[in-house]
Amino acid sequence: MIIALAGGVGGAKLAQGLAAVLSPKDLKIIVNTGDDFTHMGLFISPDIDTVTYTLAGLNNKELGWGLTGETWYFMDALERLGGDTWFRLGDQDLATHIERTKRLKDQNLSQITADFCQRLGVKHPVIPMTDDSVQTVVETDIGTLPFQEYFVQHQCQPKFKSVRYEGIEKARPHPEFLAALADPELEAVILCPSNPLLSLRPILGIPGVTNALAKCTAPIVAVSPFIGGKAVKGPAAKIMTELNLPITPAGLISLYDDLLEDGLLDGLVIDTADVDQTDKLERPVIHAANTLMNSLEDSKRLAEQVLEFAAKVKRS
Amino acid sequence: MIIALAGGVGGAKLAQGLAAVLSPKDLKIIVNTGDDFTHMGLFISPDIDTVTYTLAGLNNKELGWGLTGETWYFMDALERLGGDTWFRLGDQDLATHIERTKRLKDQNLSQITADFCQRLGVKHPVIPMTDDSVQTVVETDIGTLPFQEYFVQHQCQPKFKSVRYEGIEKARPHPEFLAALADPELEAVILCPSNPLLSLRPILGIPGVTNALAKCTAPIVAVSPFIGGKAVKGPAAKIMTELNLPITPAGLISLYDDLLEDGLLDGLVIDTADVDQTDKLERPVIHAANTLMNSLEDSKRLAEQVLEFAAKVKRS
Repeated sequence: MIIALAGGVGGAKLAQGLAAVLSPKDLKIIVNTGDDFTHMGLFISPDIDTVTYTLAGLNNKELGWGLTGETWYFMDALERLGGDTWFRLGDQDLATHIERTKRLKDQNLSQITADFCQRLGVKHPVIPMTDDSVQTVVETDIGTLPFQEYFVQHQCQPKFKSVRYEGIEKARPHPEFLAALADPELEAVILCPSNPLLSLRPILGIPGVTNALAKCTAPIVAVSPFIGGKAVKGPAAKIMTELNLPITPAGLISLYDDLLEDGLLDGLVIDTADVDQTDKLERPVIHAANTLMNSLEDSKRLAEQVLEFAAKVKRS
Repeated sequence: MIIALAGGVGGAKLAQGLAAVLSPKDLKIIVNTGDDFTHMGLFISPDIDTVTYTLAGLNNKELGWGLTGETWYFMDALERLGGDTWFRLGDQDLATHIERTKRLKDQNLSQITADFCQRLGVKHPVIPMTDDSVQTVVETDIGTLPFQEYFVQHQCQPKFKSVRYEGIEKARPHPEFLAALADPELEAVILCPSNPLLSLRPILGIPGVTNALAKCTAPIVAVSPFIGGKAVKGPAAKIMTELNLPITPAGLISLYDDLLEDGLLDGLVIDTADVDQTDKLERPVIHAANTLMNSLEDSKRLAEQVLEFAAKVKRS
């Protein structure tokens, strides 16, 4: 059994590859919810939706987010009424947010996600990292910004200084996440190629998660989101530069130092474009692969390689 | 200056005709809000929207409700997620409900309506009968039904026994409505051809309204929603039958007896198809016209006739 920790697009792509090669009972996809926010009265869970839509084969490949075949009649009408238009809500996507917001009165996010997955034909479990509220907040040169304002409204333009996850100290890891970490059948924990600071650290930072990782005997393997010193998508590389960190395997690993100390990170899959950057590293064990995922075939191939590599890596 | 009391489609059509022949300062359209309800977390004000969309020339003539050129991508996606689909929310229409629901935290319904009207190019004032909550509830043979459940979910099929307007005893007429009723420039109060029980009685029943009507010197003129013993649209005729009332001018007037006593209703415009039904009536003064409105030209012609008639009718 495999645990995959995922954020948005990159994580969703590898999760889709893993789902293509593993049975539903052999994969638990734990998703970041630090980006969740309430907009116009609607509770929006961007990473949950990206993972769910991608696994359902309904993701919009042109935009890189949202639903395929999306239309924008709502947004046009909203603009006519003088509404906020910085966060683009597609007509179909709106159904997810409105229905979820309605159900949150009686159900928690993970129950709703499980039902949506079933209705959209997603068989592999998509599990929010927590059902408690965690809010990713970014400190920038123009002030404190809730994640979506930094990410969408300001298009990641402000200079990144630091990040915090409000409420994380009181959040409880999802019980299925903890149970999977303690499961003797667990074969690997995979950190998907999502943003380390914005997507993966919120998951790893929930009280109890690193303890459970330290106790489990399965190796922890990260997949780098960088190719040739650049991020495939999103602000990861820009943030590394603003934090004066090299966009290398060592720079990436340094982002986990405090959480995954004592060599907890056992393996790292990097892109073949970055093999010349690895010579000074003893741990983790490095595996080079073509990490670019432009199709389901790419995702499946990478998933197979990651699983093969993870099977060989031992806990230190 | 003219006050028009309006509910949904029929009222909106005559209001549109009145707006075509009167300047914005000479017409106040007071709209029923007893049908307002919260659905999926969204505050929906059907009559306000019907009147606003109609005056903006954006009403959907095929459906008889909602916006022209409406699309249904949201509803299809909602159905896929197992959401409630009995109340049809179009993609463009959703923008009205979401933006209004958001603004209701800081503004009242009339402020929001005024802004939406301005943005949609509606120059004549559309004024909610009250900014307080009034909920029309129907007693039927299958039990108590909130108005929209009776009207939309059950398609008016249950047998109508009685109606009440919850909260009306604490509601305050909109200040502009009261001010218009007390305005010495007021020339007529027109009860548009809306459902007497479901649209007009909620307006007339707000404490203070009938007193103000009794004090004003302008005539009160109703336009019948019936043609040849049938309602043009909606359940008005079915309800009359279920209440054992004749679908005649006398039957219609009897619905106002308790509110507009002592001959407060000065004039009644009926359809030419119903002239043979009027012989026993002394008050109100009757005027027969072609009341069917299939086009803006029809609405304008009827509005002109109603205004001409109202100018001749005296207070009893």
